[in-house]
Amino acid sequence: MDYFMRFVFKPNTSRLERLARTTLLTAALVSATGCATQQDPWLTGRWVDLTHSFSAATVYWPTSTPFRLEPVFVGTTAKGYHYEAYEFRAAEHGGTHLDAPNHFSDNAPAVDQIPLDRLIGPAVVIDVSSKAVENREYRASLDDLAAWEKDHGKIPEQAIVLVRTGYDRFWPDPARYLGTAERGEAAVAKLHFPGLDPDAARWLVEQRRVKAVGLDTASIDYGQSSHFETHRILSQKRIPIFENVARLGELPAAGAIVMALPMKIEGGSGAPLRIIAWVPEKDR
Amino acid sequence: MDYFMRFVFKPNTSRLERLARTTLLTAALVSATGCATQQDPWLTGRWVDLTHSFSAATVYWPTSTPFRLEPVFVGTTAKGYHYEAYEFRAAEHGGTHLDAPNHFSDNAPAVDQIPLDRLIGPAVVIDVSSKAVENREYRASLDDLAAWEKDHGKIPEQAIVLVRTGYDRFWPDPARYLGTAERGEAAVAKLHFPGLDPDAARWLVEQRRVKAVGLDTASIDYGQSSHFETHRILSQKRIPIFENVARLGELPAAGAIVMALPMKIEGGSGAPLRIIAWVPEKDR
Repeated sequence: MDYFMRFVFKPNTSRLERLARTTLLTAALVSATGCATQQDPWLTGRWVDLTHSFSAATVYWPTSTPFRLEPVFVGTTAKGYHYEAYEFRAAEHGGTHLDAPNHFSDNAPAVDQIPLDRLIGPAVVIDVSSKAVENREYRASLDDLAAWEKDHGKIPEQAIVLVRTGYDRFWPDPARYLGTAERGEAAVAKLHFPGLDPDAARWLVEQRRVKAVGLDTASIDYGQSSHFETHRILSQKRIPIFENVARLGELPAAGAIVMALPMKIEGGSGAPLRIIAWVPEKDR
Repeated sequence: MDYFMRFVFKPNTSRLERLARTTLLTAALVSATGCATQQDPWLTGRWVDLTHSFSAATVYWPTSTPFRLEPVFVGTTAKGYHYEAYEFRAAEHGGTHLDAPNHFSDNAPAVDQIPLDRLIGPAVVIDVSSKAVENREYRASLDDLAAWEKDHGKIPEQAIVLVRTGYDRFWPDPARYLGTAERGEAAVAKLHFPGLDPDAARWLVEQRRVKAVGLDTASIDYGQSSHFETHRILSQKRIPIFENVARLGELPAAGAIVMALPMKIEGGSGAPLRIIAWVPEKDR
């Protein structure tokens, strides 16, 4: 029989029973209320890469070491073939990256200790770009979450909530993306970009039991935050945070599936993140 | 209606048509011969992390800069909350990592240019551990591929072929994993670990049109290779290579689905790789 059938079912399962089981599984899958993780991501659709690439232009916090790629060898070897290799260095918290709970919470999981299941799940995209592009101090609020639920129904448990501020249109220009192109300690007070309100973060964790939260700015707390309350609330609840996410405008408000895989840094408080989404084809 | 149905189908699609379409989609999915990418990965099963974590103990080539994590701040800030952050540096080609085609082929795609679709697909695990653990110069051969096909049927097109040598049991002891704990240029001649034979690599690419190839040693060419033929064959055909993969013993010979997401280094010849597999529950 075909490849799929042979490995999902025992060889001695009858064809009829195979079909019956498949139908049952599909029914379970399709009728699973409020649980898009059980949606089949392999049907027609496309992958969207929500990751900015790392280069000398990648945006970092004014006080952080930026990404740097240095050649080890690039060219033709003595044996006549092409060879190319580099070294790199960077701070954990720049570019498209993950904040692990230990970033803002003591005795909390490091980046290598986050269960994979917490990094893969149905995407809920809260689009506040129309407000945020006009107001650099904007924080996505409880009202924005209520508006999403009014349009799309209750945010399912175990969702990955992504706040779209629209600021990736300014990437990688630090003056427009962060609010300042200056670097060093004095530049921190000049950061102006939107974020997620602490009350909204608390509600997402306590009332909607989300898996993870992300957005398309440099920090889940807005630029003018000095106490990083949203980070602290999420970290205490062991919720990973995705920052500097790209291309959220290519996702539907609901229906996509996110996979966010960080570099597995042992004990790391964060790491470069490769975050992608499967967007099922609409209007089937 | 439920979450799944509302976002996959138009709101005005009748319940009957929804069911009909679902049945058709499932039939297409289940009957797709030789194409496990269309298998539903959300049914019962589990994620397996095929990634070694990055730390000071991570194994690197004798001539490469090892991974290093340096604290920026770890402790309680003046404002009274916990804060923890690090910087890191490393060579591209150490730990669990990806080789991009430009590593051994000129004008070939860099790591950020590899299409996502090439990094996600059905896993074919060629287990040569019984031979390789006894013979450090072992190269997985055409015979090993033929033996797999005899047991499991033709390797499907677009598969991700993973060679299991069993050497991850020696990780992270360089003497046992690489064959030498020495470092520097002189140590390269002392490398002894198994790999993939060039003829087998060529056959996988030309006759089976695989998406990617990986293994659980430091290099797809065996330790004593001096011309890196397997790398060159795969690079010329734009096939990504996964090296230092972990826990291949937890995958079935066929039926798992691999997702391999590298750090998105612009122009990189390789990158730290987070590679995971979905293993469907057996015997359903």
